[in-house]
Amino acid sequence: MIIVLKPKTKKEDIDSLIEKIKAKDLKPVAFEGEERTVIHVLGDTKEEVGNGWSSIRCVEKVMRILKPYKLASKEHHSHKTVIRVGGVTIGGSDFVVIAGPCSVENEKQIMESAKLMKANGIKIMRASAFKPRTSPYSFQGLGIEGLKLLKKVREETGILVETEIMDVRDVGITAEHVDVLRVGARNMQNFDLLKEVGKIDKPVILKRGIAATIKEFLMAAEYILMNGNKNVILCERGIRTFETAYRNTLDLGAVAVLQKETHLPIIVDPSHAAGRRDLIILLCKASAAVGADGLLIEVHPNPEESLSDGAQSLYPEQLTTLLKELKPVCAAVGRKL
Amino acid sequence: MIIVLKPKTKKEDIDSLIEKIKAKDLKPVAFEGEERTVIHVLGDTKEEVGNGWSSIRCVEKVMRILKPYKLASKEHHSHKTVIRVGGVTIGGSDFVVIAGPCSVENEKQIMESAKLMKANGIKIMRASAFKPRTSPYSFQGLGIEGLKLLKKVREETGILVETEIMDVRDVGITAEHVDVLRVGARNMQNFDLLKEVGKIDKPVILKRGIAATIKEFLMAAEYILMNGNKNVILCERGIRTFETAYRNTLDLGAVAVLQKETHLPIIVDPSHAAGRRDLIILLCKASAAVGADGLLIEVHPNPEESLSDGAQSLYPEQLTTLLKELKPVCAAVGRKL
Amino acid sequence: MIIVLKPKTKKEDIDSLIEKIKAKDLKPVAFEGEERTVIHVLGDTKEEVGNGWSSIRCVEKVMRILKPYKLASKEHHSHKTVIRVGGVTIGGSDFVVIAGPCSVENEKQIMESAKLMKANGIKIMRASAFKPRTSPYSFQGLGIEGLKLLKKVREETGILVETEIMDVRDVGITAEHVDVLRVGARNMQNFDLLKEVGKIDKPVILKRGIAATIKEFLMAAEYILMNGNKNVILCERGIRTFETAYRNTLDLGAVAVLQKETHLPIIVDPSHAAGRRDLIILLCKASAAVGADGLLIEVHPNPEESLSDGAQSLYPEQLTTLLKELKPVCAAVGRKL
Amino acid sequence: MIIVLKPKTKKEDIDSLIEKIKAKDLKPVAFEGEERTVIHVLGDTKEEVGNGWSSIRCVEKVMRILKPYKLASKEHHSHKTVIRVGGVTIGGSDFVVIAGPCSVENEKQIMESAKLMKANGIKIMRASAFKPRTSPYSFQGLGIEGLKLLKKVREETGILVETEIMDVRDVGITAEHVDVLRVGARNMQNFDLLKEVGKIDKPVILKRGIAATIKEFLMAAEYILMNGNKNVILCERGIRTFETAYRNTLDLGAVAVLQKETHLPIIVDPSHAAGRRDLIILLCKASAAVGADGLLIEVHPNPEESLSDGAQSLYPEQLTTLLKELKPVCAAVGRKL
Repeated sequence: MIIVLKPKTKKEDIDSLIEKIKAKDLKPVAFEGEERTVIHVLGDTKEEVGNGWSSIRCVEKVMRILKPYKLASKEHHSHKTVIRVGGVTIGGSDFVVIAGPCSVENEKQIMESAKLMKANGIKIMRASAFKPRTSPYSFQGLGIEGLKLLKKVREETGILVETEIMDVRDVGITAEHVDVLRVGARNMQNFDLLKEVGKIDKPVILKRGIAATIKEFLMAAEYILMNGNKNVILCERGIRTFETAYRNTLDLGAVAVLQKETHLPIIVDPSHAAGRRDLIILLCKASAAVGADGLLIEVHPNPEESLSDGAQSLYPEQLTTLLKELKPVCAAVGRKL
Repeated sequence: MIIVLKPKTKKEDIDSLIEKIKAKDLKPVAFEGEERTVIHVLGDTKEEVGNGWSSIRCVEKVMRILKPYKLASKEHHSHKTVIRVGGVTIGGSDFVVIAGPCSVENEKQIMESAKLMKANGIKIMRASAFKPRTSPYSFQGLGIEGLKLLKKVREETGILVETEIMDVRDVGITAEHVDVLRVGARNMQNFDLLKEVGKIDKPVILKRGIAATIKEFLMAAEYILMNGNKNVILCERGIRTFETAYRNTLDLGAVAVLQKETHLPIIVDPSHAAGRRDLIILLCKASAAVGADGLLIEVHPNPEESLSDGAQSLYPEQLTTLLKELKPVCAAVGRKL
Repeated sequence: MIIVLKPKTKKEDIDSLIEKIKAKDLKPVAFEGEERTVIHVLGDTKEEVGNGWSSIRCVEKVMRILKPYKLASKEHHSHKTVIRVGGVTIGGSDFVVIAGPCSVENEKQIMESAKLMKANGIKIMRASAFKPRTSPYSFQGLGIEGLKLLKKVREETGILVETEIMDVRDVGITAEHVDVLRVGARNMQNFDLLKEVGKIDKPVILKRGIAATIKEFLMAAEYILMNGNKNVILCERGIRTFETAYRNTLDLGAVAVLQKETHLPIIVDPSHAAGRRDLIILLCKASAAVGADGLLIEVHPNPEESLSDGAQSLYPEQLTTLLKELKPVCAAVGRKL
Repeated sequence: MIIVLKPKTKKEDIDSLIEKIKAKDLKPVAFEGEERTVIHVLGDTKEEVGNGWSSIRCVEKVMRILKPYKLASKEHHSHKTVIRVGGVTIGGSDFVVIAGPCSVENEKQIMESAKLMKANGIKIMRASAFKPRTSPYSFQGLGIEGLKLLKKVREETGILVETEIMDVRDVGITAEHVDVLRVGARNMQNFDLLKEVGKIDKPVILKRGIAATIKEFLMAAEYILMNGNKNVILCERGIRTFETAYRNTLDLGAVAVLQKETHLPIIVDPSHAAGRRDLIILLCKASAAVGADGLLIEVHPNPEESLSDGAQSLYPEQLTTLLKELKPVCAAVGRKL
C-alpha cells in the first residue's frame, strides 16, 4: 500500500501517521519528495481494506498494490474451475449454450420451448419465473407457479433448467426446483442475496451489473464464494454507455480481462446487451472467438407472442442457423460445441 | 404510440399488424412514406407497456408519446408533495439537512454524533445499521444492534433518525425503530424491496442508482407509490461516468429535470457523489441553488476513526461552516434553512 | 417527422404551428390525444434537419423517422463498398491486417518495422508521423521528416503505408507521401479536416471518436463522402466508459450495427481500445468473428524502446502467433486472411 | 513514480529494470513483497511522461505521484489568474455573464442581439461565425462574413464579442475581428489548433470535451499556456453519459475540483449541457453557487427563428429573469453580478 500525502504536510502530521501505521504492525518507509511525501507501507495490508487511511486529513490518496479479491483470483487458484451440472461441464473444453425464452408464460409455452431446445441439442434451458421489470405495470412473472412448471418440464423432457432469483426469501424453494440459479444484473450488488446463494450448492450464474467494474464484479463473486458456494459462473451482459443504437454495450474486452484475472468460467449474454435480435448471431460468434466458455441467449418458440423481451428473442429457425454458424468458430478456437 | 415499420415491408404484413392493433381496441392510422410506413396508434395505449409491439418481425421501432410513470408524474398530480416527519416538513419552503455518520459504529460514537447534530440544529440524523459494502471483507454494519442504538439515541436526545434498509426481511423491524427509511443506490431496482417499503407508512428516501436514468428512477418510485406508500423522497447521489477525479458525477441537471417531471420532494447527497470531503460544501451550495428540497450528508465526530466512508465525512467544524455558508444561498432562492 | 406538443397547448398555438409546417410545403396531420396533441408531418422532411421545430415554444419533442445520413447509408447504396489500394482490397472477401508501430521514430526503426511486416505477409504498414498527444511534454512525432521516411520505406520495400493526418494544412503533402490517410478519434468531428480529406482521392480511415455515437460516426463519414472522396473505411477503436481495467471499451456491437447500417468497410483497432498487449490477440479474433473487414494494430520491432504506446504494441513473435490463430477464425466466417 | 512488477518476475528482469532506471539518473528503491516487487523511483520524474516504463514486459503498472500539468497547476502558481478584456475582469470578484445567440445569422439578427444584451447589462456577446455541425446538411455559419458583422456590431454598440475558432487557418483573421476566442468541445484535443491559439494574445475560452477527464482538460490548457498565451478561461459544458433527459450531464463537481487544481478562471455553459431552455435558469444559479467565475449562455432575440440551437436559447424575457434571480445567489457566495 502506498500513501501519498498532501503537499506541505507538516512534519508532526507525518510522524503521527507513521506511528498509526506502526501501531497496526505494518512497516512504513517514507520518501520525502520535492513536492510530496510518499509512504510505502510494507506488511500484510490485505486486511487494510476500506478507506480508513484515506480518511486522514493529511492524506491525498492511497494506492493499493494488492487485488481486493482473493477467492476469485487466478493468482491464488491458478487452474480453471470446471462446473458440472447434470451431464454438462462449464469451463472445460466444451462451449455451452444455455438458451430459452425470457420467461415462463404458461405450460404450453414452456413445454414447446423445452422441445425446441432439445431438438437443437441444447441441454440447459433458461426461463424466468420471477421477473425484474422496470415498470410495475409490466408482466411480473408467474412466481412459484413458474418454478413448478420448470420442474415439470424438466421431469418430462430431461432438459436441465436455469432461472433467475430476485428475493432472498425465494432462494430455498428455487434451489429445490431448478438446476442452475441466476442472479440478474440489477442484483449484482444485492449483498444479502449474494450471501444466500452462497449457502446453497447449486451453480449460480452471476450477471455483471450494467455499471459494475470488473473489480466490483469479482468482489460480488467473492461474496458468494466466501459463503461456501464455489460454483459461480460469471456472465457478461453489456454495460450502460451513451450509445443508443442497441440496448447495452457488450463488453468483450471484459471477457478477455476476466480470463487473465479469475479461474471462474465466463459466459456471455448477447440478448440483453443487444436488445434486438438482428445482432445476436454476430455477437455470439464474437463471444466464442474471444474465449468465453458459453452463451446465455433468448429464444422463443413464437417471439411475436412473447410476454417479455420479444424484440431480442431469436426465432426458432435463427437458433438453428446460430448453432450451425457457431460450430466452426468454436472449433477455430479449440472449443467443442 | 407510433410504430415505424422496416423499409420494404410487404403489404400483407402491414395488414396483419393493423388487424392486431384493432384487436386490442386501438385505432391505427397508417402513413405510407417514401421509405417507410409509419402507423400512428390512437386510444388508451397506457396499458401497452413492455415491448410487445417491437417483437414483431416487420417493426423497426416503437416510439411512445406517453410517459411510463403515472403516480410519480406531475402531470397527474400537479401540487408538490410535502412530507411530514416529526416536526419537520420536506418538500415545503424549508430546506432540510439530514446529516450524520456513515454508519452506527457503537453507542459512544452514535450518541456523540447525535449531540453534534443537535448542537448544529440538525433535526434528522442519518446512520446506517446495515451496510452495503463492495468488499465482503469490509465492515458490514451492526445490524439489529445498530437499530436498537438508533432508537435509544432517538429517545434520549429527541433527534429523528434515518437508516438504510437492504434486506426485505428487515423492513418490518427497521420501520419500528427509525423515522425514515432509505433505499440505497444499489437497491434502486431491487423490486421486491421496493414493494415491501411500499407497504409501510414511514417516509422512504429512494436513492438514484449510479446508472439509472431519470425515467427508471421515477419508475422505481412508482413501485413504492403503487404499493400504497405516498411518502417517497427522491435522492440524487451521483452517477457513474468516465471521470475519476471524484467518485461519481453529481447530476444537478437531474434535480432540475425532476422538478419539471414529478411532485415528489428531491434531496441531494453530495457526500457519496464526491467521495472526498473538500468538495462537499461547494456541492451543497449548488444543490440548494438548483432547487433541491434538502441534503443528505455525512458528518462524523471524528472522521479519521470512522469505520466506513471516512474520506468523505465532514469534520464537525466543517458542518458549522457549511450551515453558515448555506443559509444565504437558501435565502437567495427563497428557502429557509 | 413527428412533432409532440406540450400538454395543454392552446388551439391557436397549434394552428400557428400547422401553418408554419404548411408554409414549408409539408403536410401536417394532427392527432388530438387525451394528454397531448401529436402532429405527423408528411412530405420531404429530409431537408428539415437541425432543431428548428424543437425551438418552438409549444413543442415538447420532435421525433424523426428518416436517418440523417444518406451517402453512408445502406438503404441508398445497398452493395458493399470495396476499396482498392495497391493490390489490396478492403471490404471484399479478404480480411486485411494493417499493422505497424505507433509512430515513425527514425529510419532504422521504421525500416526494421517494414521488414518485420513483410516477413509476416502484412501488406499495409501503419506508422504516425504526426502524433496527437494528451501531454505537450510527450514525443510529438517527426512531422514532414516522418512522411519522407515512410515514402522511402515504401519505395525500398514495396510495402504500402498508412499514416495519421491531424492538421488541415498537412493534407496535401501527406497525400503525396502515403497510400492511406487516417483521421484519428480525437479529430472525428474536426469538420474542416473531414472536408479537406474529402477532396483527395486516397482512401481515408476514419476512427470513431471515444464518445461518438454510431449515428455521429456515420455523419462524420458523410462529410467526407459529400466532398467527393468515396473511399472511406470506418474504424471502431473503443469508446470511453467507466471501466478502467483497459483503456477503452471495444464496441463490437457497433461493428455489428454498422454492417446493418452502411455499405462502407469497417475495421477494428483493438490496440488503442485495450491499451495493454495481453488482450490484443483475443480481441482480434473476436473482431474477425463479428464480421469486421480487417484490423489496425500496433506492432513494434522492440516495444520496450518505443517512443509511444509501447504498452499496447505487440512483440514481433506475438504478431506471428496472432496471424496463425486468426486464420482459422477468418475461415470460420468465410473470410480469407 | 512507482513501478509495480508482475507476480513472479525473475530477479534478472528486476535487475535489468533497475539498471535502466539508474541510467536515467533516477534512484530506484525496490520492495520485495509477498506477491509482487514494487519499485519506488526517486528523482526528477517529471520528464518521465508517456508510457515508456509501462512498455516493459515485466511491468504490471506504473503509478505516478506528480500531476502531469505544470503551468495550469495551482501548486506552481497559487494565486488565481484574473483576465482582463476591455473593461471586464474574469476570475476576480465579478461574476461575468457572456451571452448571445448561437450563431451570427445576418446583420439584423446580430445587431438586435447586441442591443438586447446591452439593454440587460451584458458586456460580452457570444456568437459563432464558424459552426461545427454534426450534419453536413445543417447551417455551417457565415464564416469570414460573420466575423465582419461581429466587428461591425462591436464598433457600433461598444459590446465586446466572443466567437468560436475551428480551423487553424482562421486563427489570425479571427483574432483581428473579435475580443475573445473560443475553442469548442469537439476541438479540445485538436492540438494544432491549441498551439495556434497559444501564439495569439487574446483571451481564449477552452471548452471541455464531452468525454474529457479533468486531467485531459488541464493538459489541453497546458498546450495553450506553453505556447505563450496565459489568458485561458476554462469552460465546463457538460459531459456525455447514459442519461437522455437532457443533452449532456453538466458536471459541477468538475467546477469544484478545478478550483482546487488550477489558478485559471472557470466558467460554465449550461445551454449546451441542457439542450433545453427550461433548465437553464436553475443550472445558472447552481453554477454561481458552486463557485464558477461566470457563464456562457445562449440567448436569441427570437429563438423560434434561430438557424441553430433554438431549443436551448433563452427568450429575451428569460434573460431578464435569469439576471434578476442570479444576483442574490452571486451575492450569497460573495460575488458581484
